[in-house]
This record gives sequence, C-alpha cells and structure tokens, in this order.
Amino acid sequence: MNTVIAVDAMGGDHGPAVTVPACLDFLAADPAAHLLLVGLAEPLRRELARHRASENDRLQIVVATQVVGMDEDVRSAIRTKKDSSMRVAIDLVKEGRAQACVSAGNTGALMGTAKFVLKTLPGIERPAICAVLPTRSGQVYALDLGANADCTPEQLLQFAIMGSTLVAAVEGKARPTVGLLNIGSEEIKGNTVVKEAGELLKKSPLNFYGNVEGNDIYKGTTDVVVCDGFVGNVFLKTSEGLAKMMGDFLKEEYTRGVLSKLAAAVSYGVIKRFRRRLDHRRYNGAALLGLRGIVVKSHGSADRLAFRTALARAASEITHGVNDRIGQEITRLHELGLLAAKPAEAAKPADEAAA
Amino acid sequence: MNTVIAVDAMGGDHGPAVTVPACLDFLAADPAAHLLLVGLAEPLRRELARHRASENDRLQIVVATQVVGMDEDVRSAIRTKKDSSMRVAIDLVKEGRAQACVSAGNTGALMGTAKFVLKTLPGIERPAICAVLPTRSGQVYALDLGANADCTPEQLLQFAIMGSTLVAAVEGKARPTVGLLNIGSEEIKGNTVVKEAGELLKKSPLNFYGNVEGNDIYKGTTDVVVCDGFVGNVFLKTSEGLAKMMGDFLKEEYTRGVLSKLAAAVSYGVIKRFRRRLDHRRYNGAALLGLRGIVVKSHGSADRLAFRTALARAASEITHGVNDRIGQEITRLHELGLLAAKPAEAAKPADEAAA
Repeated sequence: MNTVIAVDAMGGDHGPAVTVPACLDFLAADPAAHLLLVGLAEPLRRELARHRASENDRLQIVVATQVVGMDEDVRSAIRTKKDSSMRVAIDLVKEGRAQACVSAGNTGALMGTAKFVLKTLPGIERPAICAVLPTRSGQVYALDLGANADCTPEQLLQFAIMGSTLVAAVEGKARPTVGLLNIGSEEIKGNTVVKEAGELLKKSPLNFYGNVEGNDIYKGTTDVVVCDGFVGNVFLKTSEGLAKMMGDFLKEEYTRGVLSKLAAAVSYGVIKRFRRRLDHRRYNGAALLGLRGIVVKSHGSADRLAFRTALARAASEITHGVNDRIGQEITRLHELGLLAAKPAEAAKPADEAAA
Repeated sequence: MNTVIAVDAMGGDHGPAVTVPACLDFLAADPAAHLLLVGLAEPLRRELARHRASENDRLQIVVATQVVGMDEDVRSAIRTKKDSSMRVAIDLVKEGRAQACVSAGNTGALMGTAKFVLKTLPGIERPAICAVLPTRSGQVYALDLGANADCTPEQLLQFAIMGSTLVAAVEGKARPTVGLLNIGSEEIKGNTVVKEAGELLKKSPLNFYGNVEGNDIYKGTTDVVVCDGFVGNVFLKTSEGLAKMMGDFLKEEYTRGVLSKLAAAVSYGVIKRFRRRLDHRRYNGAALLGLRGIVVKSHGSADRLAFRTALARAASEITHGVNDRIGQEITRLHELGLLAAKPAEAAKPADEAAA
C-alpha cells in the first residue's frame, strides 16, 4: 500500500539538516513511501543537493514561506503563520493530498494547529499525545503526555479507547491491556477524576487491567497506560532527566582516571548494547490521537535516526488504518451507551475562535 | 544536644531483623542519640541478643502488643490497633517522651495515625511527605510525594513553606530556591490549581524560582520542588522503576557471556562508584511535614544502612528545630496576610471522626 506523508521539514532544533537526510533514509527503507517535503525552497534544495538527491516521483518539495518558532505561541502560529511549513503540512492532510503529517516543531503549536485545521474525530472531545516507551519486557504506549492538563473521567476513557485501538492496530494485539495511572498504597488512593475514570473503564469493553502505579510503567505491566496530560508530561520529562543523569554519571565514572578508561575500553560492547536497549531514538514519534488525520510529533532534538523512526511510525499508522479504527471503536461505544458526549457535538470546531 | 527517637521496630518488610541492627549502628555513630525501641518484647530482645546488645540508658524497649500490617487500612489501624508499635511510637512523641518517631510501616497508616494523634501544626491544613532525591549537582527536596492526591493552591503554598523551611534548617541554606512542578512547552501550560499556586508563590516571601518541569528535578534546578501528592507519587515511583530497569539492563549486559563478565570484573570500581552516587539507601527517610511532632517514614524495604539513614534524618530534624521553624514561618506569613486559613481553624482535629 502506497503511503504519502507530508513532512514539516523546517521543524525541530535542527530543521532540514536532520529532516532531509532522515527522509532520504526512510524512502530508501520503505519502497511504498512517498514524501512531501514542506518548507522554504532554498534550504530544502540545498540540503537535497548536499546528499546528491533531488525531487522525484516519491519525493516532492511543497513550498511554504514561513516557519513556526520552537517557542512560538499557538495562537500566534495559527493567526500569523498561515503559510508555515507546519501549517501547510497539516493542510495537505486536510486536503487529502497526504495521509499523515510528521513534525518536530513545537508541540503546542502543532497540536493547536492540527486541532484547528483537522478537527477532532466524532466523539472525541480532546486529542491526546501518545508515545511509546521501552519497558523491561518490551514497550508500553502512554497517553496523554501533555496535551490536556485538566481532564474529565470521560476524556480519560476516550484516551484509553484511542490508546488501546492504536496498539491493537499497529502491534496486532487483539485485546491490549489498559492500566489507569494512579497512586496505590497511600491513604487516599487517587484523586477524584481518576477514581471516576476507573469506574467508567470497568464498565467499558476495553481490556482494563485496573490501576497501575508509576513503577508499573517501565515494568511493562500493561500495554497501555492512561493518565492526564499533566501527570504524563511530568513523568515523561522526569524519566528523560533521570535517564540522562544516570547516563552522565556512568560516563563520568568511566572517564575518571586511567584505570576507569581502561575498564571503559574493555566494556565497549557491553555499554553499546546497554545504550541500544534504552536508545530513545528508537522510540521517537508520538501519535497525536483523536484528530481527523494522522499527525506524528517527533522530539524537537531528534537526530537523523530518530526522525526517521517518527516517519516510520506515521507510515505504520496509515497502513494499519489507525484513525478509521478509532472512529469505529468510538461509534461502537456510543451505540453501547458507554460514552456520554454525542459524536456530533464533540466534533464541533471549538477552536475556530482561536483563529 | 540529646535526642530521643521512638522507633517503630516492627514496621517495614523486614521488621526487627533490620530495625534493631540499624538502631545499634545509629547509636554507635551518634553519641547524643537515645532510642525507644517500640514493639513486641520477645522479638526485640531476641534480636538485641543476636547482636550481643541489651537495653541500656540510651536504648530502651517500650512494649507494644500489636503490629500494623503493610497493607492495613488506615481506619482499621487507628480503630483496632491502639497498642501497635506504630501507634505507641507516635504516642511517645505526643506525650513528649520522644522528640521524633521513625517507622518503615505502611505510609497511609503512618500518616493517618500521626495526623490523628499529633494533629497538624497551626495554619497547616494537610501534612505532606517530603523526600530527598539525588541530582546532578547535589540533592533536591520534593513534596508532596503521596499524602494528598487533590490539593488547593493554598495547600501547595503551605507545602512550599514547609519544604523551604526544612531545607533552610537542615541544610543551613539561607533562602532555598523553590520550584513549582508544571508542564512547560505545551499549549496549556499547567492546570488551574498550579497556575493559581504560582500566583500565590510569587506574592510570598519565599525564594520562588518559578515553574520547573520534570527534567529539572534531577538537574537540581531548585532546592525544593513542590507538587500535589498524585503527581509527586507518580514521578517518584516512575523514577524508582526506571532506575531499577536501567540497573537491571546494565547487569544483564555485563553477565551476557564470558567477555562481558571480564569487562564487569575490570569495571568493578567504576560500577561501585556509579551505584554509590545513586544509592537510594543514602536518601532514605521522608519527612512527614506539618504535624505537631517529627515523623520520619522509612521505605518499607529499607535495609540496615537505609533505616539508619532515616534515623539520622529524624535526629537532624530534632537538632535543627524543624517543626518550631515551620510554625514560626507559618505564623509570620499569616501576619503578613499571605495565608488565608486561620491557624486556629486549620488545626482543628478533623480526623477524630475516623476513630
């Protein structure tokens, strides 16, 4: 099945210097893939030339004259950057010229613009950010990782449906287990919203495992972990910080004096395998779920390999029809009377006021 | 200055087998310390004998006939275990026979019983759990780590005052920096409660750094990090899980075949130093702040060294008059009109209904 992905080639900390070679790598690895490289004409042509490549029937430049800044406000991006690489890439999905868009640009602007242009799927009130993380036994899909700081129990249920459907689609798992992130052993056992979300999940046809705690995430206790975007963003960034600190400590100890450097040399293979198992580049590419179109957010600091991973995720979501399946699942739960909001209502373009 | 600490010697996964030798180590290291060993008479005497020790003027057994289970409900603990080692240890603080109590028992029961028996300090609505974590540049005090799942902005301000006062007292820092845990780069930038807490913190005389994100915790961006107990518990347990996974991965790679084992042998010193920098035993002992008495919670799985660290933390809180200083600081902020709740109101024993 041929796939067409619109790439915001200007986004991220490194822009075309990373996105262009990553696109070339991806095209070489996936013969069914077609890319629309969106951005300023000159830098893109120059970068293609630097890699002895040019436009062809699988790789076309779509010119956009603006760039959304990495710290730019979402309102500013929507109002004043109507010809940005990010916006044009999303427009291409809206127009049906691309089946997905990938951007390493700023998360807030990407989510806001995608919501504004594409709207949410019927029955979904709020899209969510869903990323894959390594675990002891494989990997876990976690959402929301920062799009929605305050969530209702119903929204957490919607996240669970989207995450579960994504895993079922791209991993081929029939009934992925879903854990609700909570605090367990303390006096109160969770906040009000999470308690109510647990009740909704119990009633749903999802394969609800029950509450999980922070330490269950990397244990891989469940296939999906659901939480609000505040908690998700905090645990994700805390994990990044801790992994980096541990990596740095190990490096410091291995470079402290001659004997340690010798040990490092002898341990080269071990450390390489260790790093590979945790390599965040292999997990890059978060799905913005719940939109009427596939949008994948790459980490801003992604390098060539990491950005290529994000492209591959987008292709996989296309191939496995993730959005159609989410739409079907939401409709099914409405028909079962398990979702309160009416699809038609929830799909109203609440964000147009932002424009 | 002599210190007297009541030790719940039955608490934790290992009970007297860990607490008793840890107490002996602690007494040997701190000549000013006195301990009241609370628990079942026979196991405690047996464990003392095993270490060729006996009661003396610095170490006395206080008999308690019950034990609170590690999974026991807080209400059950308060109602049916009035002679538990945990309850008696807290009672000793209430009666002024001890200046602090240390327990590795279950967090919910410990916090609930301590609130019920000791009550909160005037002006403090809810006590919080504050632990020390290693950072790149030293250490950070984080609270609340699980006592309060839903918090008001005012409560977060109270946590900030308590954390800041604790660091000022035990670390001798004049004006510790305080960070408010938030999510930064996304569209919404925090939930409603955190936004309002930020406004209160700006107006307060605390050395408020501003918002921090998850990755700032282990960077050591601030001396204190404040969050609600849901978020705090999740990031703490996620960190424990991630650190354990990374440690296990490293171990697995170092034992994969003969060459790797050779590398491990050569790297012995490096790995030992690496582990020491992250050794959670050196950070054991969370302060239950905001009570009319010093209570330190040890990790349930603490070993001899870890439990001894918790005892040393309690001694340090006594020596530095942490609770008096928190009381003074709260009073000062009330007089400045920066705290809304009246001290007298907040101190009302709301938990007596539980008994």
